[in-house]
Amino acid sequence: MKAIAVEPGAGDPVVVEKPVPEPATGEALVRTLRVGVDGTDHEVIRGAHGELPAGSDRLVLGHEAVGVVEDPNGTDLERGDVVAPTVRRPPNGTNEYFERGEPDMAPEGAYLERGIVGAHGFMAEYFTSPAETLVPVPPELAELGFLVEPISITEKALEHAQAARSTIHWEPESAIVLGNGSLGLVTLAMFEEVLDIERTYCLGKRDRPDPSIDLIDDLGATYIDSRETSVPEIPDAHESMDLVYEATGYAKHPFDTVEALAPNGVGALVGVPDDWSFEIDGGRLHRELVLHNKALVGTVNSNRGHFEAAVDTLTSIPEWVTDDLVTGVYGLEEFERAFERNESVIKTAVEFDTR
Amino acid sequence: MKAIAVEPGAGDPVVVEKPVPEPATGEALVRTLRVGVDGTDHEVIRGAHGELPAGSDRLVLGHEAVGVVEDPNGTDLERGDVVAPTVRRPPNGTNEYFERGEPDMAPEGAYLERGIVGAHGFMAEYFTSPAETLVPVPPELAELGFLVEPISITEKALEHAQAARSTIHWEPESAIVLGNGSLGLVTLAMFEEVLDIERTYCLGKRDRPDPSIDLIDDLGATYIDSRETSVPEIPDAHESMDLVYEATGYAKHPFDTVEALAPNGVGALVGVPDDWSFEIDGGRLHRELVLHNKALVGTVNSNRGHFEAAVDTLTSIPEWVTDDLVTGVYGLEEFERAFERNESVIKTAVEFDTR
Repeated sequence: MKAIAVEPGAGDPVVVEKPVPEPATGEALVRTLRVGVDGTDHEVIRGAHGELPAGSDRLVLGHEAVGVVEDPNGTDLERGDVVAPTVRRPPNGTNEYFERGEPDMAPEGAYLERGIVGAHGFMAEYFTSPAETLVPVPPELAELGFLVEPISITEKALEHAQAARSTIHWEPESAIVLGNGSLGLVTLAMFEEVLDIERTYCLGKRDRPDPSIDLIDDLGATYIDSRETSVPEIPDAHESMDLVYEATGYAKHPFDTVEALAPNGVGALVGVPDDWSFEIDGGRLHRELVLHNKALVGTVNSNRGHFEAAVDTLTSIPEWVTDDLVTGVYGLEEFERAFERNESVIKTAVEFDTR
Repeated sequence: MKAIAVEPGAGDPVVVEKPVPEPATGEALVRTLRVGVDGTDHEVIRGAHGELPAGSDRLVLGHEAVGVVEDPNGTDLERGDVVAPTVRRPPNGTNEYFERGEPDMAPEGAYLERGIVGAHGFMAEYFTSPAETLVPVPPELAELGFLVEPISITEKALEHAQAARSTIHWEPESAIVLGNGSLGLVTLAMFEEVLDIERTYCLGKRDRPDPSIDLIDDLGATYIDSRETSVPEIPDAHESMDLVYEATGYAKHPFDTVEALAPNGVGALVGVPDDWSFEIDGGRLHRELVLHNKALVGTVNSNRGHFEAAVDTLTSIPEWVTDDLVTGVYGLEEFERAFERNESVIKTAVEFDTR
């Protein structure tokens, strides 16, 4: 079978030939439909993040997959089931985090991540995976099932942010997404279409005309150009925010978020920055956190429960949103196009097969 | 009646003569037993925090009170009930925060604080207060009832910190209090005696022999001298912490806390710093928050529910702890001693009357 693999930091992804994998006991064999591409894939490609599987000199990419069960192999799944696989796997046998269904809370060293950290990904014509990692997707959503993983990231982040406010009356009326990439935009759509937040905003640094700004407009949100209005200036320029969702990995954003938050607000952080030292008025930020009951919550990855919630969310997001969000789906013969990045691209996927 | 008042920033507290207050409808008249002194009182005295009541040139101090109902004035209270008053009051009529029982979540401008912000405190022979602000205290705890307010601050902070971890399996095994003042030590006692956390630590900067270090030792906790081990060095010198409680108001501590936390840990912030700009490796801290699912939660003040929880907690704290914690209770004739600060002082109170 064909797979898309990369030698991290040493060039572009290429198509390689691999044997169709044999499912072990408890695993099913899945025929891959589509696999999405995101910023993490680009970080893996340039060697900035992730790890090769032991003994391999190339990593099969892809952690945002949807496929069809080809061989249930004695598991509870059925041939033809449409499924999206979770990403983390235990490194050596299992551990407490996996045992209690919280692989997303495992610390470094206690997990592998398919397509990212020490395990091959899903960008292949077939993959195997333990049945409990394969989350059912309604057949009518098969083409969009590669969005389940990114949506699950936001499901987790919002679950944790809401938990941090769960002992108080908290109904966010204003919310901003920092970042107009695909994860930011899908989160903005969730704010508008699923959470029903009254006033939503999205921060970017693009000029119109731009497809991401068009989508922000069409969602009824307000676009804020970070070159004109910095995050700490947002309360004066617009309003302070009950909820901030940081999806850029810009290192200053968590600290700026404290200033952008309304009293009792919460900032959810999912972006991953590099080291960067800078000065802050730490006293003022500290005081703001305390005197206005503010919270910052970092989250990474997602578990099966978040995938299940993401499937529900995907059914609630209007078709026009996903139509605008997914700017390209490319077959294996032109898979390179799925990795191109320019201002006309929002979300892309590689298509391996159709249902 | 006699009251202890101060002209903020213009000298020491003095005894003043005031009329015994008349309870309005819905209010009870309370005969004051004891009122605790804390860091906020000292900030009010030096004019660094708080606000005079409209039309007054002096503020009656005191926000940590316990008293006995003298005149229930038609409320559900009974004469002789021992009560501790909550601190916040609505500024002009009521508002949504007070209506839903969350005055502690009111933003600046939406509350007064008795003894601190725009309202006279409880350091007087009598005070009046709405019945719903008077929390019953078991008569046998009357002498320690002035600890209910500070304990309620920690009840709220821990409630919010635990809420932030409520969607995951989270049983903190290691916890540190930053600060060995009275609030820090009472929190440490709660970690040890109420929450049953296995390994507890307390950060201070005192030399032995010192009564606060003795109490830390006696609680079975580990004293960490901040002059020898900085907060970011704690994981290497001891271990990383599931829970950090910041009670000093040292501006750098929230940022240092991110480094001291174990994966999936939470930092609760209650100290209030002044402005202070400094450099941080914001990129590394941001990444730590995200990749290890860490959270920071600021909280201020407390509501009636936290006072009720604090009464329960006070019944669980062994008598030897409160004996060691309360280093001085002084009658009106020597009230100045309650405001003295030196290394032999942990917690003091002014006694107005006995039961």
